Amino acid sequence: MSVVRDGQDGRDGRDGREDRYERPHRPARSEGEPAADRRSGIRLAALRLFAAQGYRSTTMTDIGAAVGIRGPSLYKHVASKHELLAEIMIGTMEQLIADNIEAVGGTDDVREQLRRSVEAHIRYHARHRLEAFVGNREIGNLEPPDQERVLGRRSDYERRYRELIERGAAEGAFEVRSARIASYSILDMGIGVASWFHEGGEFSVDQLAYQYGDIALRIVNA
Amino acid sequence: MSVVRDGQDGRDGRDGREDRYERPHRPARSEGEPAADRRSGIRLAALRLFAAQGYRSTTMTDIGAAVGIRGPSLYKHVASKHELLAEIMIGTMEQLIADNIEAVGGTDDVREQLRRSVEAHIRYHARHRLEAFVGNREIGNLEPPDQERVLGRRSDYERRYRELIERGAAEGAFEVRSARIASYSILDMGIGVASWFHEGGEFSVDQLAYQYGDIALRIVNA
Repeated sequence: MSVVRDGQDGRDGRDGREDRYERPHRPARSEGEPAADRRSGIRLAALRLFAAQGYRSTTMTDIGAAVGIRGPSLYKHVASKHELLAEIMIGTMEQLIADNIEAVGGTDDVREQLRRSVEAHIRYHARHRLEAFVGNREIGNLEPPDQERVLGRRSDYERRYRELIERGAAEGAFEVRSARIASYSILDMGIGVASWFHEGGEFSVDQLAYQYGDIALRIVNA
Repeated sequence: MSVVRDGQDGRDGRDGREDRYERPHRPARSEGEPAADRRSGIRLAALRLFAAQGYRSTTMTDIGAAVGIRGPSLYKHVASKHELLAEIMIGTMEQLIADNIEAVGGTDDVREQLRRSVEAHIRYHARHRLEAFVGNREIGNLEPPDQERVLGRRSDYERRYRELIERGAAEGAFEVRSARIASYSILDMGIGVASWFHEGGEFSVDQLAYQYGDIALRIVNA
């Protein structure tokens, strides 16, 4: 199950999750814009449609309609909807890993490395809720070798957390029964943010990042 | 994203998640069994199919085939696949709430209430991974009034955790910056268990429950 929250602003009942299902469309762009922008516009339209109605139920025609391209012209920009799904999911993991490398690289203090890592993890999940939702739901629809690419990057990302916690424990800065469980709990609480957070609630993205950073340090008894 | 783990037993790469996609079928049952067993057999077959291929892509014919019922006879047992989805998702939340009531009711010590609540939450998610997966993915396909029923129960469940943490803080047993964020982090780390746990790994369900109970008490600084 996924617990749907009251809404962090204290409103009863819904949590903004439904909002994610309700806005699959974006304005069409003009034909004159650069190809890279065009491509990212198509990817964003696909992301919204995959989130709103599922990957299997989304057609290239739907994606074309959302960006104002009719008929086979869309294939000048992108080969298939699978290519878009793979690009979204691989891009998500590469961004998370790049953010983590920056977070850890800026200091030698293992406590501060964990705090910054968690803050980056929270910021990403608060700001990329659709990517998180689609990434969770559609991994089974990703075909080889793209599925292996995503799973390999997920393993790498998770391993970075586990090894950081193991190092902190070895240095005497952290105290955990299992570095694996500690890392899973920290990652999962952050992933959960994508399922309930919405802008304009009780906390900003940064306030949320700081709180989860503190919670992570409690989990490792830093 | 959802981080796919190395496997808690230390094997590299996959996490048992794929297993969940690979076993949609179960043996057919005989026509002579009691109606209640028949019904629960149909529900289990539907759960496995919804997890494996998605609710939208599953037909009543698929469900019938999985339990050895051909043609319209299935409708003697169940009115629609939506009814099965609603039953699965409402049943999940009612079980979680019932488990939580038992966990809190057995003691007056707020620390022990939180520990037992978390242990029950972990046990459910370790043992009902398909329900958790389908519950997360298919909430958007649930129609009114069933969607409201599920969302209302999720809010109730979440509120029980938040109020428990608020009470512990008021009693001086817990110390948190935000009871809401503390409760979300505890619930989300438990929900995450459903995405990576598999039997036969490094930890049993009970060992996992104890570890997460300890982590939850750290989160609230008990």
